[in-house]
Formats: sequence, C-alpha cells, structure tokens
Amino acid sequence: MSFKLIKEDKKSEARLGKIKTKHGTIKTPCFMTIATCGSVKSLDSVEIKKMKAQIVLGNTYHLYLRPTDKLIKKFGGLHKFMNWNGPILTDSGGYQVFSLAKMRKITEEGAQFKSHIDGSSQMLTPEKSIEIQQNLGSDIIMVLDECAPYPAEKKYIDESLELTTRWAQRCKEHFDKKNLRLKKNERALLFGIVQGGTYKDLREKSAKQLLTIAFDGFAIGGVSVGEPSEKMLQAVDWVAPLLPKEKPRYLMGVGKPEEVVGAVARGIDMFDCVIPTRNARHGTLYRFLSKSDTIKISKNTGKFYELMHITNEKFKSDKNPIDKNCGCFTCRNYSRAYLRHLFSAKELLALRLASIHNINFYLELMKKIRNSVR
Amino acid sequence: MSFKLIKEDKKSEARLGKIKTKHGTIKTPCFMTIATCGSVKSLDSVEIKKMKAQIVLGNTYHLYLRPTDKLIKKFGGLHKFMNWNGPILTDSGGYQVFSLAKMRKITEEGAQFKSHIDGSSQMLTPEKSIEIQQNLGSDIIMVLDECAPYPAEKKYIDESLELTTRWAQRCKEHFDKKNLRLKKNERALLFGIVQGGTYKDLREKSAKQLLTIAFDGFAIGGVSVGEPSEKMLQAVDWVAPLLPKEKPRYLMGVGKPEEVVGAVARGIDMFDCVIPTRNARHGTLYRFLSKSDTIKISKNTGKFYELMHITNEKFKSDKNPIDKNCGCFTCRNYSRAYLRHLFSAKELLALRLASIHNINFYLELMKKIRNSVR
Repeated sequence: MSFKLIKEDKKSEARLGKIKTKHGTIKTPCFMTIATCGSVKSLDSVEIKKMKAQIVLGNTYHLYLRPTDKLIKKFGGLHKFMNWNGPILTDSGGYQVFSLAKMRKITEEGAQFKSHIDGSSQMLTPEKSIEIQQNLGSDIIMVLDECAPYPAEKKYIDESLELTTRWAQRCKEHFDKKNLRLKKNERALLFGIVQGGTYKDLREKSAKQLLTIAFDGFAIGGVSVGEPSEKMLQAVDWVAPLLPKEKPRYLMGVGKPEEVVGAVARGIDMFDCVIPTRNARHGTLYRFLSKSDTIKISKNTGKFYELMHITNEKFKSDKNPIDKNCGCFTCRNYSRAYLRHLFSAKELLALRLASIHNINFYLELMKKIRNSVR
Repeated sequence: MSFKLIKEDKKSEARLGKIKTKHGTIKTPCFMTIATCGSVKSLDSVEIKKMKAQIVLGNTYHLYLRPTDKLIKKFGGLHKFMNWNGPILTDSGGYQVFSLAKMRKITEEGAQFKSHIDGSSQMLTPEKSIEIQQNLGSDIIMVLDECAPYPAEKKYIDESLELTTRWAQRCKEHFDKKNLRLKKNERALLFGIVQGGTYKDLREKSAKQLLTIAFDGFAIGGVSVGEPSEKMLQAVDWVAPLLPKEKPRYLMGVGKPEEVVGAVARGIDMFDCVIPTRNARHGTLYRFLSKSDTIKISKNTGKFYELMHITNEKFKSDKNPIDKNCGCFTCRNYSRAYLRHLFSAKELLALRLASIHNINFYLELMKKIRNSVR
C-alpha cells in the first residue's frame, strides 16, 4: 500500500497519514507547492528543499507545450530537469485546457484545443495525458477529467461525469501498461478525480463509479473553476464519506487557509493552490495570529491568521519583520519597510522574498494541522 | 592611511592593494556589484555575501528619491536597511541626474532636475549629495560632478571640469564637517572625480586641480555617457600616471571584461558596471576560455572569455551547466537547457540564476587578476 493511515482525529474527520512515492514519503495532510513550468515562481529548487516543501506540483499542460515532455524525458524526467529530488504530482492538463487554451472541443476521444502559446492545434486524450505524465516521471499522476464550468445545468454535469469516468478507465488501463512493468519502488501512483459539480446525487454517482477502478488515491475536482468555497466544502461533505479510508484524498486547487483547515476537518489529505505565491507577488502576506504549534481543526474554523498588504504606506518605516514569530528566510533577514521599498521600486527581489514567506506560512499551517491531529 | 599598496606588477601598471573601510577591507583590484535601489537586481544580500562580493554600489539618486535617505538613516543606514554588512560605495547622484532625470539645469549652485518617478522638482548641490550619502551611511562617498555628454566641445568640457573642481572642493569641506567628528573607525572615505572628456590637456588640468584636495581616492569619470571604450582607456592612459600611488583609483561605470583587464594594466583598482546583471537579464552569459586561476594582464588583452546567448535554440536539450568549470550556484545546480526553458517561459527564476552566474564571473575575473599580480 502506498498510503498509511497513522491516526484519525477524535473530534473531526481529520487524518494523519503518509504517502509513499518513488521519490520519498509525504506526511499528510500536506500542501503542494506549485511549480507550473518546472519552477516555483521566482524560487529555485534548492531553497524550496531548504524550506522543507514535501512535494511540488507540475502542470502537464504547460510542460507538454514547453519545453515538451519529450525533452524532459531525455533529461531523465522533471526531477532531474528542475533539480528537485522530492516527490512531484502532475495534473492531467485538463484544467488548463478548460481555463487557458482556446477553441477547445470535447469529444469522446479527448479534448481538442489550441495552444495558448503558439495557437497550434493539440489533442489531449486520456492516453496522451498519461503518457505525458509518465514522460515527466511524475510520482503521482492524475487522470484526465472534464472540468465543467460553474454554474452548469445538471444534465451537462451528468454527461460530463460519465465521460470523466470513461476517461478515468482509459487512463487506468493505459497507466498500468507501463507502470506494472516497472520495479515496485519505481512505480508512480494514479489518482482518480470525482466530479459532479454542485449536485449531491451526481457527486455520489461519480464517486461510486470511480471507486470500482483500482486507483491509488482520489481527488475531488471541479471545485475551482469559479465555484464559491461553500459549494466546494459541501462537495467534500458529500464525497469524503464515500471514499475508502485507506487511500489518500486530494482536494484540487484549494485553497485559502481556512478552506484548507475546513477540508482537513472533512477528511482531506492533500491540497494545492496558487494563492500563496500569487498573493505574494501582489504584496499580500500571511501571518498567524497565534504562536501555538497547533491549530483548532473544525469544519468552521475561526479566524487564525491575518493578511498584511505590505505595500501599504503604514509599513514605510516599519523595522519589524513581516512576522516576528516566523522563521522564514525573509523574516530572519529583512524588515517590512525594506520589503515595501522593494515593491515600490519594482525590484524583482520583492517577489521572491514575499513568495518565500507565504509558502513558508502554508508549510507551517500544514505542520500545525499535523501536530493537532497527532 | 585607508589604502595599502601591496604589490606592483612588473610588466604593467597593475597594482595589488587593500582599501580599509568602516565595514571591512576590500582587496583590489575589485569589482563593485551594483545595488541601485538597495538590492542587486533579483538577488538578496545573503547570497551576495555567500558569493563573496566584497563591496556593493548604491545609487544616491535612486535612494534619495525612494525610499529617501532620511528613511534609510532612521534604519541606521543602507547596510542595515538592506541587511548587508560589507562595504558600500555610493555615487554622487550626478550621473543619474544626467542620464535619467528630466529638465535638468546646471548652475554654480548645483544640478536642478525633475524626478523621473513623480516629476517633482529637485536640487542636488555638492553639499546635498554629501549629506545624502552620509545619511545612507556609505563607506566610500563620491563627490558631485558634472557628467558632460560625449561628444562635447572643448570649451564646454573645460568649463564643466572647472565647475566640477569647485563642486569637489565644496564636497570636501562639507564632508569633513561631519566626518572629522566621527571616531576614526567610523569615518567614511571621500573620492574625487577627474573629468575632462576626451581632451588630454583637460584631463591633466582636472587631475592637477583635484590633487590639491585631500581626497582618499580618485575616480576617473565621464567615460560612460556614450563614450567609446578606446576613448575611455585613453583617458586612463593620460590620468593614471598623474595620480598618487598611495591612493586607490576607480574607473567609473567600466566595463566589459577586456576593458577591466586593460584598465587594471593601466593602474586602476576599482570598477563597477551594470553589464553583468543587465546581460544576465537578457540571457547573455560569460564563460572563461581557460581554467587557469590567473589571467594575462596587458593593455591590449587577447580574447579570454566568450559570451553565450542561453536563449539560443542550440541549448534546448543541452544537459551541461553554463560552464562546467564554474562553481557558482547556478552551474552547480542547473543545466543550460533548464535555464533556456526558464527564459522561454518567462520565469522569474531565469533572471536570478543568470545574474548569479554573471556576477560570479566578474568576481572570479577580479580574483584571477589579483592572483596574476601577486
């Protein structure tokens, strides 16, 4: 088994676990730092490792188009290409086809689209998505799913989830062809993705269909294409109880710190989100309200952090670090005033220092969560 | 004495020396890494220190306008503000008034100009420039000079250098007022700047006038406002022999690696230039042709390095580091193909990794030069 359930919380559905991958073990609940094009925006892989990030997420859509999975395969995979020897999860490329690409057309065969880079015609099938992710050398591979928009009619969502199930089956079959030929310690994991939008019966239907396929883990998808956070946590409420306890659960594209805690309380183990780094690049920084090394895990968590807009005039001559209780590189070395100045002067360093702090906040958040369940 | 002449080359005018500043000793010949707005573009002060940069250069014009020298003074100076405890040289602001600011007007009093940031009217006098640099806590302070354009008529250059001398005298007087009240180990150094354009007699006149003022070192200025490199080295040929051996000599804004070596061979000790970092941000990288830890020092040095345009298609699947003989962070960790990919994908990390390499190249160049003289 690739997942070990270590402990279950008494007061909530929160779980403590370990996922074993070919590039090492991940303690869950965990947050996956996003390295879209093979780099965590503005940061290098060595500092990411120093910050004790456990796993990074690479985007199949981006890497397939540039520099191409074929090139990365020549390098021995994404790990070697970006000099990161920890675990990597890759998405299927589906989400970006729906959010970034133009002229997309969904058929039984797959998703046709035009590259957002050069306009070239591309076709992403379930088999192709798996092949790309295998070329990238991913540790955790995601099935190709249709990411339906929100809101959408029930009939559309129903047909979409049925297609997603058929695609999931094709992914699994194609994945096994190569994966089962590998030595056990070189094998990747494959996760299915539960869809069904904001309809309880459809979420349940999707989950039941996917559970018949021997996936290594399950993701809950389709919650971040414009879907409000309460709808998303509601989907978790419906789906999580149906998922097997002995497999990891991943809530895709989530989220704000309170959403992460709320989802952990509902039994989710894995998260990814662009907001810590995107916020950082806009000068919006996170601070815990308490020094405690634990955090209250509940479905409706109270306020446990605050946002600081570092570009604000009031930080102009503030000699304090962003957070005096934070041990990140930025807080150990630089003041709020310096960081504010770097943003004002449009210095590139601002983006990196802010990103380091926010990623560290999310990694600390997950550590507090794990401490609390333990 | 703040400068110690350790050795003179037998075959050229090259010198080995040490400059003692309130923030430590600098081995010369040295290259000063530029931190215009209080950050070496895309790099943090901790990594600059790890790279063994000896001294950074802050730009008075930029820091005066934003975040202001008054704010930096409140932080205990630029060293504390940017978390760099090594030596800092600041320019006078004059060069940027002539290259960046609008609506400038030169009077006996000083240089009037409009801020390139907010259009506000500003007046930079010799006294004001010194005060700003003292507020910044600079280790090596430069006098305010008029940076005449190239080409310019002889009469204009003549009047300009006379004004520069009068300004230099005012700078020295104003500098001493505060500096002489400080303890010896807290004092800054003040450098004069020899002007005179491309006219031998005017360069000599400027040097002779400035030599009557008790400066701690001398710079050769006015060589980078569009002046071709042969004209600049010619100015060094005229001026360097007139300068006292026991004081450091700084060729401002220079230059390409071969210009640095050529100027060292003519007796120059200090350099600064934006080209390593600017080139880096455009993907142009330096590589030594030889592994030798010395370099031939001569006025007309042969080809000892090459430029690599990392965005070139031919590096697409190149697994080698930029330079296999280079020990910089970038070369130790990343391939040419990865770096090329980061540039193609417009990833911020590209700029940092390239900057690290090019700055390291310049620091290594200076080390090779010092080894050779030794």
